[in-house]
Amino acid sequence: MIYLDNAATTYPKPKSVYQSVMKAMTEYGANPGRGSHAMAIEGARVIYETRELMAQLFNLDDPMRVIFTFNATDSLNQAIKGVLNPGDHVITTSMEHNSVLRPVKELEKYGVENTIVQCAPDGRVKVEDIEAAVKSNTRLVVTTHVSNLTGTIMPVEEIGKMCRGKNILYLIDAAQSAGVLDIDMKKHNIDLIAVPGHKGLLGPQGTGALLINCETEIKHLREGGTGSESSSMMQPDFYPDKLEAGTHNLPGIAGLNAGLKYILNKGTKSIYSHENNLLDIFINEMRKNHKIKIYGPEDINGRCGVVPVNIEDIDSSEVAYRLDTEYGIAVRPGLHCAPLAHKTIGTEKKGAVRFGVGPFNKKSDIMAAVKALDEISGI
Amino acid sequence: MIYLDNAATTYPKPKSVYQSVMKAMTEYGANPGRGSHAMAIEGARVIYETRELMAQLFNLDDPMRVIFTFNATDSLNQAIKGVLNPGDHVITTSMEHNSVLRPVKELEKYGVENTIVQCAPDGRVKVEDIEAAVKSNTRLVVTTHVSNLTGTIMPVEEIGKMCRGKNILYLIDAAQSAGVLDIDMKKHNIDLIAVPGHKGLLGPQGTGALLINCETEIKHLREGGTGSESSSMMQPDFYPDKLEAGTHNLPGIAGLNAGLKYILNKGTKSIYSHENNLLDIFINEMRKNHKIKIYGPEDINGRCGVVPVNIEDIDSSEVAYRLDTEYGIAVRPGLHCAPLAHKTIGTEKKGAVRFGVGPFNKKSDIMAAVKALDEISGI
Repeated sequence: MIYLDNAATTYPKPKSVYQSVMKAMTEYGANPGRGSHAMAIEGARVIYETRELMAQLFNLDDPMRVIFTFNATDSLNQAIKGVLNPGDHVITTSMEHNSVLRPVKELEKYGVENTIVQCAPDGRVKVEDIEAAVKSNTRLVVTTHVSNLTGTIMPVEEIGKMCRGKNILYLIDAAQSAGVLDIDMKKHNIDLIAVPGHKGLLGPQGTGALLINCETEIKHLREGGTGSESSSMMQPDFYPDKLEAGTHNLPGIAGLNAGLKYILNKGTKSIYSHENNLLDIFINEMRKNHKIKIYGPEDINGRCGVVPVNIEDIDSSEVAYRLDTEYGIAVRPGLHCAPLAHKTIGTEKKGAVRFGVGPFNKKSDIMAAVKALDEISGI
Repeated sequence: MIYLDNAATTYPKPKSVYQSVMKAMTEYGANPGRGSHAMAIEGARVIYETRELMAQLFNLDDPMRVIFTFNATDSLNQAIKGVLNPGDHVITTSMEHNSVLRPVKELEKYGVENTIVQCAPDGRVKVEDIEAAVKSNTRLVVTTHVSNLTGTIMPVEEIGKMCRGKNILYLIDAAQSAGVLDIDMKKHNIDLIAVPGHKGLLGPQGTGALLINCETEIKHLREGGTGSESSSMMQPDFYPDKLEAGTHNLPGIAGLNAGLKYILNKGTKSIYSHENNLLDIFINEMRKNHKIKIYGPEDINGRCGVVPVNIEDIDSSEVAYRLDTEYGIAVRPGLHCAPLAHKTIGTEKKGAVRFGVGPFNKKSDIMAAVKALDEISGI
């Protein structure tokens, strides 16, 4: 199998990730923070170290403000619903994933207004358009860092600067960028980051995090045991316990720990450069086939990780099916949980075939995909 | 290490659980339900099979009403907040874990009334006391199935019958009973069950489930991508997608799959009998030491999995510390996230040392614990 569905989840992971998951399960598989014995303490130590690695990667001062979650969707729900109250206004973009759009639309029912800023057909958003949408009650701007459909890199530094100037919170959905692009919460004026553990951060599924770089009150959405202030029937008011109820995904976090070490050791610049080189080759090769339509930014430097394409009028699902069954190539067709993004690029009817590269893809994977697309398109 | 902290999380797991997690990560580590290629389809198949195994274990007709969650706390929050509305009344007991008490207390802020029924000092609750607390606006009764502190088995069949007769929803927290006691949702009139995947079900941490055996509207608490109805900015209205937003913990669910197969193959009766025999020996041995106070039901048949003890006036943390460092025995001291339960048994000041047995404990583990307790108590 040639795996080019890395935007859904990276595969494979570094070997150290598998080993770390296994070690957590077999050697210290206790409940961290819920006991004082050696195994529970080792679990708690690994979790704390993983908070430190996350804080280091995104330049956050306090590791206790790294909140471990179920997945990026859980992180986004926590951030969006944690800070918004009835009467508030939130701004987002037409390139967002349903993990942003659906919570935002849900909050409409409870009196939270929203504006969805229209992006250009290549996925780019203008900071001026976001700024123009600001109202007196705007409390939060949420944008993706990189579109999961087109790979378009959003101008997060400019948006962060604008938000900071107006005292508006800025949350980024880093599902496609974390572990690949340089993200500096302090320098880039980012208040909140939601990340999955299982994409660019190379951890297992069932992991995610919310990083908090602001003093704003964030309501807890889930209450329960925290192993702290156990005599109280109220959720503790300090991080991370306030937002972390229930047993942690210890094997998952241990795997994420190894993924983060791999990234910090390799450097995001090197990972991005590898992936972007592959994308560049892929796009240039596909441009030779006049039946293929390529979506997203023209300039390779405006793009990260993915490229969606269509072959003339062939349905995206059919292309993906043939890639899988005839060529052993894994990609993702359809709407990618991003309905407005498909509308923005004009593919809401037939979807698109998304190719997503990862750190372990090789040039031969790309060339196999090019050959397959050429054959399917009858060139 | 002699592991007697199985009530926090079971350790070890069956070998097949570790193998299943590893296989999911290394052989089909794609994103289930988010692609149509072979790996994603295999992931989706394993997840569906795990729903079937869960439905089989708890006698639920429709596997699509098995909702996978982050942990039992997540399941309990989903159930409690999903069904209760301002103006409703909920009844629970003084033996509950903070994963029940804290969400219930949180809802008080939003106009949901609650009654916490006082249990007896051995942890038992009288169905008449629950019934006496019923009001015209009582919508939900939540009880634990087995106390995580005393191991007391609650009369869930009688409570279920009473609730069904009054058209009140019944939710059980099966954190300590799932995989050990026989639970039949249909026969026992249980509308909702919240379970962790990583305790008696022998799966990895980061897994949990909510089983739905009623037609009541359950509000979703998390919205996001589901891989279904992707063109809509609204959360789908069908199970399980309605309550399952974001990427699944595929390796975790694959491990849970193996854990469930182990249990279904072995039978809960055999697992319960093994654990209860060990507890019986343990309690009888400890009764010979007059310095040890044992909490919970006198009758071994009223108990499941755990026994909390104290040695005269020695603080529970000190006993646990000595068990760990001098004898290599892992237990959990303190309040066990169950403040009212400790008040109920009279240990809210010093806590208690909780021993929890699992399917892989042996008689020698128990005898080592008895010897250690005798030595620590100076007998």
